[in-house]
Amino acid sequence: MVRFFVKPEELNNQFIVLTGQNAAHAKVLRLRAGDQVLVCDGLGKEWVCAVSDVSSGQVSLVVKGMRESQAESSVRVCVYMAFPKADKLEHVIQKATELGADEIVAFPSARCVSRPDEKSLQKKLERWQKIASSAAEQSGRGKVPSVLVLKSYEEALSRASLADKAILFYENEQAVTLRMALQSGPYRTVSLMTGPEGGLEEAEVEKARKTGLQVCTLGKRILRCETAPLCALSAVMYDAGEF
Amino acid sequence: MVRFFVKPEELNNQFIVLTGQNAAHAKVLRLRAGDQVLVCDGLGKEWVCAVSDVSSGQVSLVVKGMRESQAESSVRVCVYMAFPKADKLEHVIQKATELGADEIVAFPSARCVSRPDEKSLQKKLERWQKIASSAAEQSGRGKVPSVLVLKSYEEALSRASLADKAILFYENEQAVTLRMALQSGPYRTVSLMTGPEGGLEEAEVEKARKTGLQVCTLGKRILRCETAPLCALSAVMYDAGEF
Repeated sequence: MVRFFVKPEELNNQFIVLTGQNAAHAKVLRLRAGDQVLVCDGLGKEWVCAVSDVSSGQVSLVVKGMRESQAESSVRVCVYMAFPKADKLEHVIQKATELGADEIVAFPSARCVSRPDEKSLQKKLERWQKIASSAAEQSGRGKVPSVLVLKSYEEALSRASLADKAILFYENEQAVTLRMALQSGPYRTVSLMTGPEGGLEEAEVEKARKTGLQVCTLGKRILRCETAPLCALSAVMYDAGEF
Repeated sequence: MVRFFVKPEELNNQFIVLTGQNAAHAKVLRLRAGDQVLVCDGLGKEWVCAVSDVSSGQVSLVVKGMRESQAESSVRVCVYMAFPKADKLEHVIQKATELGADEIVAFPSARCVSRPDEKSLQKKLERWQKIASSAAEQSGRGKVPSVLVLKSYEEALSRASLADKAILFYENEQAVTLRMALQSGPYRTVSLMTGPEGGLEEAEVEKARKTGLQVCTLGKRILRCETAPLCALSAVMYDAGEF
């Protein structure tokens, strides 16, 4: 079924009106009275609706029922990524959304060569959030992951450490695997943290350990900074029994 | 240690000479007499060498020892991907190489909107093989995955079916998970097959079943055609105990 994301305040349990981009999209899809569609609040709930009327610039829907989204994972995984160069962050936002991430958080670290300045940040965040919305729509998700930017590495560590499994990947770690970290006990929330192109500094890794993160390997091959979070996220979803 | 891929016929157990692009790369890295480097045959063996002499256009090495590459996976995973649009195949070749694939095979299927014509194919294959080489080098692999192109869907099926686990991912499959397929018995070789942007046709999926492939889901979210193979490959490597 086609799905539309609508702001929670525009939703109610009887009638919903699609406007703006949603109405334009409905036109492209040639929706007609009687067609079934899904309307999502982007927070995990969805409304099954029937089109009642299509007019210029708006589409009226009658609500048939409301349910929890069926495409959301039972585990909440937050991807923490040190700012990478150029369009790599956008790539990770799109793919991590498809793969079911709950949040994507970018943070600065010592060897980051790129980090957005204060001025352009708001505009970039809007763009990134749009990429997540569009990927959520395409992949059939009921929730749009939040994209966040933190101001310091320390803030990222202390936020990440709150999850049941808080994991930092480091290419010099050889003994502790992701599997060991995940299988040491049950989990509902996971933080997956990865470094920038140049890697994390040894002192940063030590700081992570002290904050309570478990330092793990992603195997014997060196993964690019945009590959590592997606590989780890895929493995966590697999481990959690998603596929 | 820096690594160079050299054609097997240029290797011996005493002295190796780097020429061409390898020599140019050594120059960029400012290698000097005494430095240690690794020379790989791209087939899984590597030679530990010391630089003995650097001159214009060539670098002479003394072989210290030969060993099996330590970065190759214990399972051989072949990624079968229906021809996607434009640069998506290149993306998958690069990432699948990092993630440890043994082979990347492209094949035509009913809904492929893009497939290279005979004329341009040889040139494209060379380009794709170069992408794999370069990703293998960067990720520290000892083997360069082969990139192959098959002429028919049927050829892809019968080739894929030879693996211990031959798996086709289909978005309409809901019951059988990758986990069930992998954990039903031990494996050393895996074929992971995915469709193009428009998906596989029901009849194609049936044909796969008849050829002996197991049809599996990759979860409740619809993955793009370039995300699915990498997600599956990450999960297989995790399942095989690589990280």
